[in-house]
Amino acid sequence: MDTYSLIHTALKTDKGYSKIKIGNTAIGNGDFAYIAGPCSVESYEQIFATAQEVKKAGATLLRGGAYKPRTSPYDFQGLGKEGLRLLAKAGKASGLPVVTEIVQIGDLDFFEGIDVIQVGARNMQNFPLLKQLGKCNKPILLKRGFANTIRELLLSAEYIMAEGNENVILCERGIRTFETETRNTLDISSVPVIKQISHLPIIVDPSHATGSASLILPVSLAAAAAGCDGLMIEVHPDPKTALCDGEESITPEEFKQIVLKTNNILPCCYKPRGINI
Amino acid sequence: MDTYSLIHTALKTDKGYSKIKIGNTAIGNGDFAYIAGPCSVESYEQIFATAQEVKKAGATLLRGGAYKPRTSPYDFQGLGKEGLRLLAKAGKASGLPVVTEIVQIGDLDFFEGIDVIQVGARNMQNFPLLKQLGKCNKPILLKRGFANTIRELLLSAEYIMAEGNENVILCERGIRTFETETRNTLDISSVPVIKQISHLPIIVDPSHATGSASLILPVSLAAAAAGCDGLMIEVHPDPKTALCDGEESITPEEFKQIVLKTNNILPCCYKPRGINI
Amino acid sequence: MDTYSLIHTALKTDKGYSKIKIGNTAIGNGDFAYIAGPCSVESYEQIFATAQEVKKAGATLLRGGAYKPRTSPYDFQGLGKEGLRLLAKAGKASGLPVVTEIVQIGDLDFFEGIDVIQVGARNMQNFPLLKQLGKCNKPILLKRGFANTIRELLLSAEYIMAEGNENVILCERGIRTFETETRNTLDISSVPVIKQISHLPIIVDPSHATGSASLILPVSLAAAAAGCDGLMIEVHPDPKTALCDGEESITPEEFKQIVLKTNNILPCCYKPRGINI
Amino acid sequence: MDTYSLIHTALKTDKGYSKIKIGNTAIGNGDFAYIAGPCSVESYEQIFATAQEVKKAGATLLRGGAYKPRTSPYDFQGLGKEGLRLLAKAGKASGLPVVTEIVQIGDLDFFEGIDVIQVGARNMQNFPLLKQLGKCNKPILLKRGFANTIRELLLSAEYIMAEGNENVILCERGIRTFETETRNTLDISSVPVIKQISHLPIIVDPSHATGSASLILPVSLAAAAAGCDGLMIEVHPDPKTALCDGEESITPEEFKQIVLKTNNILPCCYKPRGINI
Repeated sequence: MDTYSLIHTALKTDKGYSKIKIGNTAIGNGDFAYIAGPCSVESYEQIFATAQEVKKAGATLLRGGAYKPRTSPYDFQGLGKEGLRLLAKAGKASGLPVVTEIVQIGDLDFFEGIDVIQVGARNMQNFPLLKQLGKCNKPILLKRGFANTIRELLLSAEYIMAEGNENVILCERGIRTFETETRNTLDISSVPVIKQISHLPIIVDPSHATGSASLILPVSLAAAAAGCDGLMIEVHPDPKTALCDGEESITPEEFKQIVLKTNNILPCCYKPRGINI
Repeated sequence: MDTYSLIHTALKTDKGYSKIKIGNTAIGNGDFAYIAGPCSVESYEQIFATAQEVKKAGATLLRGGAYKPRTSPYDFQGLGKEGLRLLAKAGKASGLPVVTEIVQIGDLDFFEGIDVIQVGARNMQNFPLLKQLGKCNKPILLKRGFANTIRELLLSAEYIMAEGNENVILCERGIRTFETETRNTLDISSVPVIKQISHLPIIVDPSHATGSASLILPVSLAAAAAGCDGLMIEVHPDPKTALCDGEESITPEEFKQIVLKTNNILPCCYKPRGINI
Repeated sequence: MDTYSLIHTALKTDKGYSKIKIGNTAIGNGDFAYIAGPCSVESYEQIFATAQEVKKAGATLLRGGAYKPRTSPYDFQGLGKEGLRLLAKAGKASGLPVVTEIVQIGDLDFFEGIDVIQVGARNMQNFPLLKQLGKCNKPILLKRGFANTIRELLLSAEYIMAEGNENVILCERGIRTFETETRNTLDISSVPVIKQISHLPIIVDPSHATGSASLILPVSLAAAAAGCDGLMIEVHPDPKTALCDGEESITPEEFKQIVLKTNNILPCCYKPRGINI
Repeated sequence: MDTYSLIHTALKTDKGYSKIKIGNTAIGNGDFAYIAGPCSVESYEQIFATAQEVKKAGATLLRGGAYKPRTSPYDFQGLGKEGLRLLAKAGKASGLPVVTEIVQIGDLDFFEGIDVIQVGARNMQNFPLLKQLGKCNKPILLKRGFANTIRELLLSAEYIMAEGNENVILCERGIRTFETETRNTLDISSVPVIKQISHLPIIVDPSHATGSASLILPVSLAAAAAGCDGLMIEVHPDPKTALCDGEESITPEEFKQIVLKTNNILPCCYKPRGINI
C-alpha cells in the first residue's frame, strides 16, 4: 500500500495513542466517550430535556443535528443556524460539550458555540471541506463513508491533519452490503485494524450501523469489547415522535442501561499494546 | 417506495424523454454524446492536442479535470482555476463544449467558460452543492456515487431540479463490490431501469467503471446497446505519462475506433418506448 | 495472482477460442446460443408447448428445471426425475438439445437424455460435484456464484477440466450488491475480462441477473454487445401462472423479439482478437 | 417476510433458547463453546499435540479439516477418510468431542467417530446435503455462506430441521464486501438479530472472518459481548508451517489468552431475554 508510506500524521508513532481533550472531558487513550442525543434538534424543550437526561444517564457529550443531509430534498432538513444555537445553549445548561454536523464550509462561522464538528459519512471525501476543517482549532469527528475503505478513512483524516489540525476522532458507522436485516453492516474489525495502524481515537455509532433500537445494546457492548474509544448513540425523549430516525432511537432510560452495562464491560475489553489505562 | 411519490421533476412525464442542449450539440432523446478528454488538464499543449484529436475522432464534448478529488492529500490535485481557463480555451479552439468537475460551491464563479458542470461520485450527496447548482443556468452532469442506489441518484437529481435547473444528465460509473478484476462493477441494468423511471438522459463512464483501457471498447458497446445516451471516456495523447488514471486512459486513435464501432451499433440498440429517433 | 499460474486448461492458449458442440448446434468461437425455456418443468403440455414456440422464435437449446434448489424447504422443489424425462421428450419432439441443472451427483444416472448439464450458482464451489462432472462426457454449463469472483469461476471450471472434461460453458448471472432495483447486479465487464483470460465460451443469463421481465431485452443486447457467446432466458407460455420466477419470465412472443433484435446487433458486437467469425 | 411464516422449527418458541448437547459438553442457552484446532489435519502428531494443548488452554471441542473445499483443484485437499480417523483418535485421547466438515453426502459413513458435522460456507445452500443431514442423529454446525443473508441461513437450518434433526448450531464467519483490510467482514449484528428471531445457538468464527491472527482476540471479545454462544478458532502448533490458512492461525498459547480474556468478559456480555444462565 504505497500511498500509506506518504502519511506522516495519522499513522502510529512512538508517542502512543492520542487523547483528544474536549472541555472537561476527553476521547482516546483510555478515555471512553458516551455521545448521546437526538438525530435532530427539534425545539429547545426537546434538546434541553434530552441533555439533562443523558447527562444523568452518563453521557459525556451531547449530540444533535442542526444541518441534516437527507436523501430527499422534501424531507425535514434540520433547523440550521437556530438548531446550532439551541444545541449550544442546552449543552451549556447541562455542562456537556456538544457535537454536531457541518455540511458546507460556509456555515463554519455559526459553529462558534460548538465543541466538536462532525463530518458525516456522505462528506468523508468532501476534500475542500476537510482541508478547511484542518485549519480550524476544534476537534473533528470524521465518520467513515458507507462505501469507503479503512484506508480511505485514514487518508481523509490525513487531509485534515496535513493542514495542522491533529484533533481527529474517527467513527465507524457501518458499511453497505447485501444484508437487509440491518440498515448497514457494522464493520467491527475496523476498530482493531485502526488501532494497529493509527494513533487516532475510533468510536462506533451503533444507531446508524444497525438502524434498530433493539440492537443498540448488544452492538455497543461488542464495539467496546473490540477496543473502541466511545459510542455515539441516538437518544430521543420520545422516539415515536422523532422527526427523523425514530426507529433507531432509544429512550434516555434505555441509554442509561447501555452506559451501565458498557461501564461494566470496559475493564475486560480489548486493549491494544501501548494504550494508557 | 414512498419518497418517490414526492418527486415531481425527475420522474417520467407524458412529455417524453428530455434532450439537454449544450451549444451546438445535445444529449438525450435520440442525441448520443461522446465526451472525451484527459483525467486532468496538465498543460495547454496537452489539452489543446487532445481536443483537436478527439474532435476529429468524433467527440461531441471535451472533458478534463481542473479540480481533482483525490483519495490522498499528497496526490496531484489538479491545476484548479488555471486548469479551467486552459480547458475553456482548448474547447473554444476546437469548437467543442467543455465539461469539468466542481468540488466546492465557492469555485462556481470560475466556471463561466465551462458549458457543463460535473458533480463527481464523491459529491453525489453533497446536498448544499446540489442546491446551489440548482440555481445556476448550466447543465449538470451528475455521477452516481459508488455506493449509491439508483433511487438515491434520482433523489440527488431532484435536489438540483427542485431549485429550478432541470438540465440534469445522469452518469453511471460503476459501483463497489467484492470483484477485484475491475476497479468498479458497472451496473449495466441501471441504464434501462432509469429509462423506465425517469425522463433524464443517462450516460455511462466505462473508464472509471472498469479501470482498464482494454475493457473500454466492449463496455462502451454494451452501454450503448442497453440504451444509454452517451459515453464519457478518458483519452490522453500519451496514457503512459498521464498524471492520473493512466492505466484506464486510451489514445485518441483507440477512441476513434470506439466511436466508429459505437456509431455502427447505435441503430440496433435498445430504444425505450417514447424515445424520439 | 499466483494460483492462476497453475491453471493449464481454462486459460487462453494459442489454439484460439473453444467451440462446444451440442448435437446439431454449438456455443462459442462465433456460434451464438439462445437457450430458452421455463424456470421449472411443470407438465408435459407446458414444456412441449414452450419447446415448440421457442424453437420457432429462434432458440437453439431448450432449458427447464427438474431439480430446483430453493431457498426455503417449503417452496416447490421441481418434478425431479419425471421432470428430466418430460424435458428430454420435449427436446426430442422439437429437435432442440436440452439443458438442465444437477444438484447432487447421485442423480447423474437420470441425466442420460440430457445434452448439457448445468451447475447452478449455489453449487459453483461444490467441488466433489465438479470433480464428478469432470469425468462425464457431456458439456457442463457452469454458472457463476452470486458472490464469487471471476477468478474463482475459472478455478471451478478448472476442477471440471482437470478431470478430463474440457467442454465447459461459463455463465454470468449477476452478483449480489446493495442495489435493490434489480434482483442481482449483472457484472457486464466479466464477459470481456473472461475473453481476455480464457478460451472458454461465456453466456449471460439476464433473467436471474435482473429479476424483471421488462429488463431482459436491453440487458440481452448489452450482453451480446460485450461479446458473450449466448443468452439463457426464462420463457414461459403464461408467466403469470409460473410455479417459480414468474416475474422475470417472458412470453414466447417477447422472446422472439429479443432473438430478432439480438441477431440484428450481433454483427456490430465486440469481437475479441482471434475469434472465428 | 412471508416465507418466514412457514418456518416452524428454527424460529423462536416459548420453550426458550436451545442447548445442544455434545458428549460431556454443550452449546447454547448459557453454555459457551470454545472450538479449536488446525485448519486441516496434517498428521497424527500434529492433531494429537494440538488436541492436548487446546484442551489445557480451555477448548471444549476439537476441530480439524479432513475434507477441505479449496478454491483451486491444485491446492492441498485434505487427508480425507484418514484425516477423519486421526481426528477422532486425537479427540478420544484428549477427551474432546470433535467437529469436522462434510463436503458430500457419500462420505457420511466415514463420520461415525465424529461428534459434530460441519457444513461449510460454500455448502450452506447445498440443499440435498442439508436434507440428508436432517436424517442423521448428530449435531450439525451450519456456517453462513459468505454472500447469504441471515434469513437464508435460517431457511437452510430449516432444511435440516424439517427432516427431523433439530440439533443445529449456526455459525457467523464473515461476509464479502469491498473492504480489503480483512479477508471477510464479520457481520457482528447477525448475532443479536438471530437471538431475536431464532432459538438456535449461534457461534462466531473470527479466524475466517478476519483472516489475520492479530485480530482474533479483539474480534472474539466483540463476538462474546454481542451474545454469541461460542467461538471457533484456528489453532496450529506452528502456524508458519501450516498447510493452509497459516496467516490466520494462532498458537495454543495465544488461544489460551483468548479463552482467559473471553471467560473474564462473559459475565458482562449481552444476554437476550429468556436465556438461561
